[in-house]
Amino acid sequence: MSVTAPAGFRAAGVVAGLKSTGAKDVALVVNEGPLDVAAAVLTSNRVHAAPVAWTRQAVSDGIARAVVLNSGGANACTGPEGFADTHRTAEHVADLLEISAGDVLVCSTGLIGLRLPMDALLAGIGEAAAATAGPGGAEGGPDAAQAIMTTDTVPKTTHVTRTATTGGSLDGGAEWSVGGMAKGAGMLAPGLATMLCVLTTDAVVDAATADAALRAATRVTFDRVDSDGCMSTNDTVILLASGASGVPVGLAELTDAVTEACAELSRALVADAEGASHDVAVHVVNASSEDAAVAVARAVTRSNLFKAAVFGNDPNWGRVLSAVGTVPVDVAPFDALALDVSINGVQVCRAGGVGEDRDLVDLAAQREVHVEVDLHAGDARATVWTNDLTHDYVHENSAYSS
Amino acid sequence: MSVTAPAGFRAAGVVAGLKSTGAKDVALVVNEGPLDVAAAVLTSNRVHAAPVAWTRQAVSDGIARAVVLNSGGANACTGPEGFADTHRTAEHVADLLEISAGDVLVCSTGLIGLRLPMDALLAGIGEAAAATAGPGGAEGGPDAAQAIMTTDTVPKTTHVTRTATTGGSLDGGAEWSVGGMAKGAGMLAPGLATMLCVLTTDAVVDAATADAALRAATRVTFDRVDSDGCMSTNDTVILLASGASGVPVGLAELTDAVTEACAELSRALVADAEGASHDVAVHVVNASSEDAAVAVARAVTRSNLFKAAVFGNDPNWGRVLSAVGTVPVDVAPFDALALDVSINGVQVCRAGGVGEDRDLVDLAAQREVHVEVDLHAGDARATVWTNDLTHDYVHENSAYSS
Repeated sequence: MSVTAPAGFRAAGVVAGLKSTGAKDVALVVNEGPLDVAAAVLTSNRVHAAPVAWTRQAVSDGIARAVVLNSGGANACTGPEGFADTHRTAEHVADLLEISAGDVLVCSTGLIGLRLPMDALLAGIGEAAAATAGPGGAEGGPDAAQAIMTTDTVPKTTHVTRTATTGGSLDGGAEWSVGGMAKGAGMLAPGLATMLCVLTTDAVVDAATADAALRAATRVTFDRVDSDGCMSTNDTVILLASGASGVPVGLAELTDAVTEACAELSRALVADAEGASHDVAVHVVNASSEDAAVAVARAVTRSNLFKAAVFGNDPNWGRVLSAVGTVPVDVAPFDALALDVSINGVQVCRAGGVGEDRDLVDLAAQREVHVEVDLHAGDARATVWTNDLTHDYVHENSAYSS
Repeated sequence: MSVTAPAGFRAAGVVAGLKSTGAKDVALVVNEGPLDVAAAVLTSNRVHAAPVAWTRQAVSDGIARAVVLNSGGANACTGPEGFADTHRTAEHVADLLEISAGDVLVCSTGLIGLRLPMDALLAGIGEAAAATAGPGGAEGGPDAAQAIMTTDTVPKTTHVTRTATTGGSLDGGAEWSVGGMAKGAGMLAPGLATMLCVLTTDAVVDAATADAALRAATRVTFDRVDSDGCMSTNDTVILLASGASGVPVGLAELTDAVTEACAELSRALVADAEGASHDVAVHVVNASSEDAAVAVARAVTRSNLFKAAVFGNDPNWGRVLSAVGTVPVDVAPFDALALDVSINGVQVCRAGGVGEDRDLVDLAAQREVHVEVDLHAGDARATVWTNDLTHDYVHENSAYSS
């Protein structure tokens, strides 16, 4: 599992002292090649952190050899000094690995508006570089996954394996894979979330293919989890390709595997969202277009009233309908008097009015809730995941920085 | 105070038994003229309640003689039967008042997806009609304001008086006024909210003036309070003009007075929002346009993370900036590195980075919180009010229908 599962990668996670808890807080992922292909999808928030600005520039040539990540501080809203800190971080990694600083991507997560303690960070990076080069470096993925956790209660990792399908029968049986780690509990929103994700693959691909596959995958996975509607300053998803499997992989195959990895990680983020007691899938079916389906699903996943009702195990379909009705007609054409809503398979709303008895829905029985909204307006569909709105969410997010 | 403060109106609020608590739940407001001018602004939610559909049609000629309102049931998502119930309600009022059903506006508030108990409602209307015609009818405004409450803890009323400025010196000293009542605690959102509001005036105005004044007033008042981002199926603001003062009033004057009345009522809604412990004013200044200022303010008032931080008395300006950054550049041009944020007068963020010490901000000292975001991008400004996100909000909204 994690980023060292595919061939060609080494990683480490160490304690640098950025977190007051004494937990691991600096991670390093090194691509040993032979390829040095990289792609990244970054937050669309105009107020973005220094490491996001750095990484956007550094990855623009499709090349990276390492990713350094820290928890315990977002390095966001820290001005030119904060950018200098990120630059210095990348330079330090580059010196230790004897590569170019422009081939080092940087990610940070934690509180906004605080400078990073650079002495501690640089010392931690030294330790992480030594660990990746050491005997445990090839199995360092799980440590790295721990080091990027903030309010996460469990590390999130994935490993998706594939058998080569191209190159004729002689290649049959050759394996390649995608590994990955992610952090981010709560604060998940479209345009990514307060989440960091590093994916690795030993497939032989070029930078354009990696970029296209990553964008296609995040569009239908990370961009469709939305715990609380908030978009972070630091969201980053990175894909590194080492080519170490020797297996050439096409765009469709790579997209499929990366999507599977992203889906597993994004689902894990929802399952570990801050203070949540339910994972809620809003499925919109029979929409006029996929965009329309996503817009309607997002309106429901953004409704605090609906989310609070789910916390109370209340199948309040009126709040679903009320949220659906806020979507403008040019975005999603539908007839309000044709809408059906099912909650966990019980059609509580039929043709915009009362359907089956809502008491047939038992939301207390399981963590997962499935809401299906049938627009009767076409044949497109989409699913967006969210969480309920709980006492614990309010508590964690009112106490986080104090 | 309330709707019977201006001359020419009678009102009542009675117990019809729609609320399980035994509180007043049916209100009637009657315009005795000489004018029968009416205007209404209704929810833009495509899933709207039967009374909204009725009132939109009934008011389209600019004429109404009465408004009947019930709490204890929204009559939303109740299908053709629900619309028939609204129709029957209007017919009953019309019969009792010997007017046309098309001159009766209807409002309902309460749970979605339940039919109204029509026998109880019609009996209550009979009682309310008798009360308005009785000796107390001219002072029935406060009772009507009580009868439309749902989770409100206090009735909301207003009375704005003006001295005639037109018609020459002979008219000097003649008074006219705007009275009003509103309900709606929580669930306030743009495009109105789960709120009902009836305004009355004894000014002499025509229907076009009443409509224009009401739209101008709600745009900068009710449309700029946003407790939890949710838009209701039933929101309605009605203005009735009796002309009983005999004072002709122009558009600017009427707009000014109606805006003052709406501002007072909308501010009262925020102050009584479900479970809130803070009222938060987000002031956006130096924006490129008023629309840009509103968009940025709304992004902040929609941030659950920021709202939870306010509940925790945490002046978390990073969450303000993070919300501001989600507004697209074509909606609100600004330089993220130029943003200043002040909270209760302390400039905690300067030029997109750390400003004054956040510990100088004491959010626990008072209920009102003032956040100012300076975009340095023009000279337009706007304010949107919201509430914090609290344990009690979650509790009330998870338990509301159970």
